[in-house]
Formats: sequence, structure tokens, C-alpha cells
Amino acid sequence: MYSEQILAVLKKMKVKVGDRVNVTKGKEIFEGVLMPRIEVGDQDTLSIKLNSGYNVGLRFDRSVNIERVGDGPKLGSIPALKLKESKELPSISMISTGGTIGTHVDYKTGGVFMCRSPEEILSTAPEIQSIVNLKNIIRPFTLASEDMLPSDWQKMAELSAKELNKDVEGIIITHGTDVLHYTSYAMSFMLKNLTKPIAIVGAQRSPDRGSFDGAMNLICAAHFIGHSDVAEVCVVMHGSSNDDYCLAHRGTKVRKMHTSRRDAFRSINDIPLLKIWPNGKIETLNSNYRKKSKGKVVADTKFEPKVSLVKAYVGSDPEIIDWHVKRGFKGIVVEGTGLGHVPTGESGITKDPLRKKYSWIPHIKSAVDSGVAVVMTSQAMYGRVNPYVYRNLRLASNAGTIFGEDMLPEAAYVKLGWVLGHTKNLKKVRELMAQNLAGEINKRLDTDLFLI
Amino acid sequence: MYSEQILAVLKKMKVKVGDRVNVTKGKEIFEGVLMPRIEVGDQDTLSIKLNSGYNVGLRFDRSVNIERVGDGPKLGSIPALKLKESKELPSISMISTGGTIGTHVDYKTGGVFMCRSPEEILSTAPEIQSIVNLKNIIRPFTLASEDMLPSDWQKMAELSAKELNKDVEGIIITHGTDVLHYTSYAMSFMLKNLTKPIAIVGAQRSPDRGSFDGAMNLICAAHFIGHSDVAEVCVVMHGSSNDDYCLAHRGTKVRKMHTSRRDAFRSINDIPLLKIWPNGKIETLNSNYRKKSKGKVVADTKFEPKVSLVKAYVGSDPEIIDWHVKRGFKGIVVEGTGLGHVPTGESGITKDPLRKKYSWIPHIKSAVDSGVAVVMTSQAMYGRVNPYVYRNLRLASNAGTIFGEDMLPEAAYVKLGWVLGHTKNLKKVRELMAQNLAGEINKRLDTDLFLI
Repeated sequence: MYSEQILAVLKKMKVKVGDRVNVTKGKEIFEGVLMPRIEVGDQDTLSIKLNSGYNVGLRFDRSVNIERVGDGPKLGSIPALKLKESKELPSISMISTGGTIGTHVDYKTGGVFMCRSPEEILSTAPEIQSIVNLKNIIRPFTLASEDMLPSDWQKMAELSAKELNKDVEGIIITHGTDVLHYTSYAMSFMLKNLTKPIAIVGAQRSPDRGSFDGAMNLICAAHFIGHSDVAEVCVVMHGSSNDDYCLAHRGTKVRKMHTSRRDAFRSINDIPLLKIWPNGKIETLNSNYRKKSKGKVVADTKFEPKVSLVKAYVGSDPEIIDWHVKRGFKGIVVEGTGLGHVPTGESGITKDPLRKKYSWIPHIKSAVDSGVAVVMTSQAMYGRVNPYVYRNLRLASNAGTIFGEDMLPEAAYVKLGWVLGHTKNLKKVRELMAQNLAGEINKRLDTDLFLI
Repeated sequence: MYSEQILAVLKKMKVKVGDRVNVTKGKEIFEGVLMPRIEVGDQDTLSIKLNSGYNVGLRFDRSVNIERVGDGPKLGSIPALKLKESKELPSISMISTGGTIGTHVDYKTGGVFMCRSPEEILSTAPEIQSIVNLKNIIRPFTLASEDMLPSDWQKMAELSAKELNKDVEGIIITHGTDVLHYTSYAMSFMLKNLTKPIAIVGAQRSPDRGSFDGAMNLICAAHFIGHSDVAEVCVVMHGSSNDDYCLAHRGTKVRKMHTSRRDAFRSINDIPLLKIWPNGKIETLNSNYRKKSKGKVVADTKFEPKVSLVKAYVGSDPEIIDWHVKRGFKGIVVEGTGLGHVPTGESGITKDPLRKKYSWIPHIKSAVDSGVAVVMTSQAMYGRVNPYVYRNLRLASNAGTIFGEDMLPEAAYVKLGWVLGHTKNLKKVRELMAQNLAGEINKRLDTDLFLI
């Protein structure tokens, strides 16, 4: 709620929340929609949604003038794309799961809602119907991605296999961006004999903003599905912070690397497969990918959810491993430091008995001895872990840790859940974790692949 | 140990481990030192340390010929820099703590040891004595950095303050690279009224390799301490993968981003302060830094070690928060997703009661209610968390989470330990966490600062 001071001025000027207004403060002029004051924040600050879609907060003082210039946008006025059949174009399916790409702002309450139907989402990119034939549109659930669970991956994978085995070229999945990459890892491991592509797309900015990125991501994804020969799970998102091109990232090597930039998704330890312009131009950056072919796609969604991702660092408490074991966890991915280190309490010339209390080695050994799979990755993220370089690394390796090559910690987490869904035999787990199942291990890793 | 097959050939050819050898395999020729077979790895593979310092493994077969060409390097043959006093040059102190920069390889056992004295480390960069006067050299302990504890930060900070208050221009600290950045965060928070600089340097490659980076890092650090006007804790390491220049990164905004590259340390959400060439040329990249001045440096090392760093992700178990509370932890830094999300079980149109089990919100609220400080950061690392954009973010904020702006998760962890060392009052903790104490919060964050 606004302060009484502001409410009095609004009443006097006959301005209501949701109206289009002109506000001057000193020499500055702002035109936009008066937004409600949300529960947090200063009650003495006017919130204006500018025409650019950005919100601006104007601290109220005597230099502020506000004037009503017209009605604001109406609720429920979101257009929906009218679907038409275009048999001459490649057919695709679309699975809509929620996220910013499907939000809209309620100008009366200030709330952001995820209530766009797939057709409403598609209306932000109507040109998509000149690129592909939208054959099947499905909305299995509507979730902010941070609320997803492994069971949602299973649903999505089963649905995806079903759709891919129909007469379509591939699938676009719209998704919230927070954990979009976790879903791309899961789809990559759960879909076997992939003969057609899946493009997962989202938006870093909401559709009410001028900087909305979802439309271009959808268009590039349509070109990717309809007009490339890739048959992998890819994340298709902005490649730069401009609206110039998208990148198709391999589903197991991509990570959200920025909280807000539109090109937040980056390939780590791999080269993006394709550069895709919204006009349909496609450039191959990395030709080492699975090609489209014939054959039935299989969803193999067995997954062990008792798996966790734990970080090792200065002063970290290694008894967290014991807690996981006691709680029935079957797998633990450790984000170690550097080449895959955990504290050992053993190095150097100082062999302080107190230091031993911080050693992860006995806790890892005990977890492995009780049948829990422990996988090592690096919090440095770029590069490869390696148990052979230093003695402390060999201590972790000898305690039974499986070193995860150049896998991203989060991808190793999803992979371990999938592997443990299929076998609890640690020897087999080790074999499968060392195998490149879906592009997650880049055997030909080039150290030039850094910060690109 | 090598296989019997290899041992027989070595005996026949009168080659011993540690000898300089010529090996041909098919058409390829390798010259180097025959290394012992370490405990892990294939016993049928010859390990040769090439003149470049890299090890190569040659699978033994009938095409392999090995010939002794001379003696290998001798143990204990590491030169030590003979220190001389150069009163006309700026005086510095050096604190040597261990790590790869101070290792050497034992060619008889294959082991890597951290037994170089500071003078032996300096002998890799003898030209340092033409840049600065090495006044005081101290070796408080010798540790692989992954084995460090917060108590080691306290020792280093106290020692640093003592040295800085002598007649020197600043300090070079040599350090293992795994958690070098954690130490730079700790020194930044623990040293108050900093009027002189500290350069923390390490090496990503060991001194026996042709690609050793520690010497150039030391030389650039000497230029930084002796010939710049920065009075901050900085990490001075290679700026590119060539031996062309170093970067001085602000101590609270730097992170190890690659397991093996020599330019692994990168500034996140900030511009490196200086570009430093080994010939002494210095270019200012970011003039927003603390300048050298007069005044006594104070070590304020109170630190609460019962602080942890926990990651939230798809399927993560929020009861980990309760475990920390029960175990007496006073602070928890959460690495959330995107803008600072944790699972809430509340979003979208699906309000599945089972989903609620995964919600972090009640666990965070209960932790905060019992006096534990909970700080939110983002696993995306680049960018800023923000509790105002989405409803789920406000749920976390309303539960009492302190949003950590653009702080790195690991820097927020060290800061929270330092803050809780000084007050357990959550209101004061919130105030201090929101304050920029040592450059850890970049108020003028530019979104262009991505992957540089």
C-alpha cells in the first residue's frame, strides 16, 4: 500500500492504480502505468511501469506531479495466436511448462502471473507459423521452474517421447529459466535413441517488457527444430545481449551463468552447436552432434531422487556426508575445489590433529563403504577434475570417489540420479559415470573453451 | 610399480627410474626422465617427464624401445635465491604458505612435495630483486590450500597487519590456488584501515614444468606492491593463457573459474583493477580502488566458524537447513537459482501437497526464528540477486532471508562468518551484510561485466 501522503495526492488528482499517467519529478518526465505498491519496499515511492516495460521507483516529494492521461492496459487483454495448419511446413509439438516466458503482469495488483496459455505465449511470436506447423500443443503443468521436481522431468520425458514418436520434426519446450539447464540435463539422460531434436526455451525478461527475449528464442527454436539436422536436447536462448542471434547449446553442457542477462545460458567445456539468426540463417559452430535419423525414441525415466549436491570449501563440515548417508541418500556429488580436492587434514608439514576433524576423506570412505556413490566435480566449473596430479587428490580417489571428468556439477547430479535409478552396484555406477552417455563428458576438451 | 614385462626390459637396457631416457614408439620419439609408476594407473604404461615438464604415458608394446642417455635431475638440487639488500628499491614482506608454487617433483618417487623454502620459490624469479627489496620473508605454515581452515586466515591476517605496520610497501603472499580466493576474501574483511597492498599469488602449474606460471605472477606482484598506488588485497595471477600479462583482481570479487588454466582467476561482477606486464608496465583498468595512505593497519580477525554454504536445486532436501540449526550453526549462505530462488512448492496452478515437502520456505523461516542468519546468493554467480521481481523471491525474503546483492556465494560465506564473529544480532547482521565493507558489493554493477 502507498503511504497516506501519496494516497491523498492520488485521490486529489483522480488517479487510480492501473491508470496511464504522466509523472514529473524536478526536470524529469516519466510516462507509464501507475503500479500498486507491493508488500515490500518503501511506501513513499511511486512505482511506474514505463513503456519500455521497466519499472521505475520515484521517491515522492514536493517536486513530484502526477497526472492521469488515460486508461491503463486491461486484464485479460492478452492476445492468443490463432492456430492454422500449414502442411507444407515442418510439423512440431510444443510443451508449455510455465516460467517467465508465460507470465503477465496484472496492472491492478502488480503481481506477475503465470497464466498465459501456450497460444498466448505464441502470440508474442506470430511469425513462428511461417516457419513451422504447430501440430500439437500441450500444457502438462504450469510451474515456476524453481518449484520443479525430478518427477516433473519424468513426466516431461515421457510426454516428449510420445510426441517425438508422432509425425513431427521435434519439440519446443517452454520453461522457466532458473533451472532450465537441470531439465535439459534430465531430458538428455532420460530420452534414449533420440532421432529428433528438443529445444528448451525460456525468457529472462517478461513479455510486458520491451526487452522481452522469449519471442526471438521461440523463433530461433522453430528454425532449429524445423530446419537443422541436430537430434539432441538443446537449450536455445539469446547468444548475445542484443536481439541478434541465438545459440543452440548441447543439453548436458549448458549452464545459467547470469541472474538477468538475456544471454545468461552458456556452454561450459564445449562449443555451442549452432548459431541461429531469427531470419532463419543457421551456422554450425560445432559439428560433433547427433544427427536426425529414423527410429523410435524411448523414455527411460527411472530415477533415484535420493541424490544430493554438496560443496566442499574452507571450514566445511564433512559430517554433512554422514547426515546424507543416515537419511538414506544413495548418491552424493561433491563440488570440490580446483582439480577435485576436498580438505584432507594431511598436507604439508603441519599435521595438526584438530585439522583432521575437517578431513572429508574418512567420511567419504565410510559413505562409499556403506554403498553410497560419491562423485567428484569442481566448483571452478570450467576444466576437468583429475585424481592423479596431487597426493591429496589420490586420497579422495582411493577413498572411493568417482572423478567426474569435465562434467558440470549439476549435470553430474542429474546423471547420478539417473544412473542410480538403474543400478545400485557401485562398480556399475562407476562404469556408467565414466561413460559419455549424452555428451556430458567431452573427451576432446579444449582448454580454449573458457568464458565464451 | 611397473609390470614385470617392463621391469625386465628396463633391467636388460640398464635403465633406472630417474634416468634421462630416449624412448621410441613406432615413429614417435620422446626424450625425458623415466618417472616411477605411481600407485594408480596402468602398470604397463611407461611414464616419461618430457623436457616441457609434461608427463606422457606410453603404453608398452613391442614397438617401444627405451635407451638410457644420461643421468636424471638430482634431488635437493633446487637453487635458493641469495638475498641481497637493495635500499634504493621499495621494501616488501613475503609470506609463504604452501601450494603448487612451492612444490617440487621427486624424480625417484614421482611424488610432488611442498618443501620449497621461500628462497627456493624466489629463485624461480630472481629478477624480483631488481624490482623490490625483499625485506622480511616469513613461512608461518606450509599447507596445500584445500587443507586451510578459517583459523589459518586469522593467523595470516594478524601476521599481515604486523608486517604492513613495518617499514614496507606491502606484502606478497604465496598460496595454493584451490582456495586462494577464499583467503583473499578473508584478508579483505579482516584487515581494516588498509593503507598498503597485499598481493596473493600462486601457480596453476608446478615449477618443474615449462609452463610454470608462478615466476611471472611473483614478478607482476612485485611491480604491483612496489610501483602501484593500490592499497587493497588483490589476487595477482595470469590474465591470459600466455605469459604476456597479469591482472590484479579485487580481493572480494575474484574466483577460480578453471581447474587448470593459468588465467583461471577472473573478476566476477567487477573490472580487474590493473593490468600488469612483467616488464613493469601497469595499466589501470578500474580506477575505483582504495589508494595507499598513512596509518596503522588493524587486524580484526573475530570470526564465527559455524557458518555454511548450501546449494538449492531441483529435488534438494530443505531439511539440510534444520540439520545446520541443530548442529549449532549461526549462519547459512544459500546458493539459490536465478535471482535468488529456492523451491517454494507454491507456484503455478499445481499446488500439490507433496510438492510442499520440498519447500525451503518453512525451514528458512524456522532457522531465522531461532536466530540463524540466512543469506541468499545465486549459483549463476554473475549478476545480482533481487527479492522484488517475483512472488517466490518475496516468499524467501519475507521468511527472513537477507539478499546478498551481487556478492559471490563464497565471498558472502566468508563475510557472514566475519560479521557473525562481531554480532549475533540479526538486525545488525542484516545491516552489515547490506553494507559494502571491502568492495564485495558493487553498487554500480554493469551487466556488461560478463565472462571477461
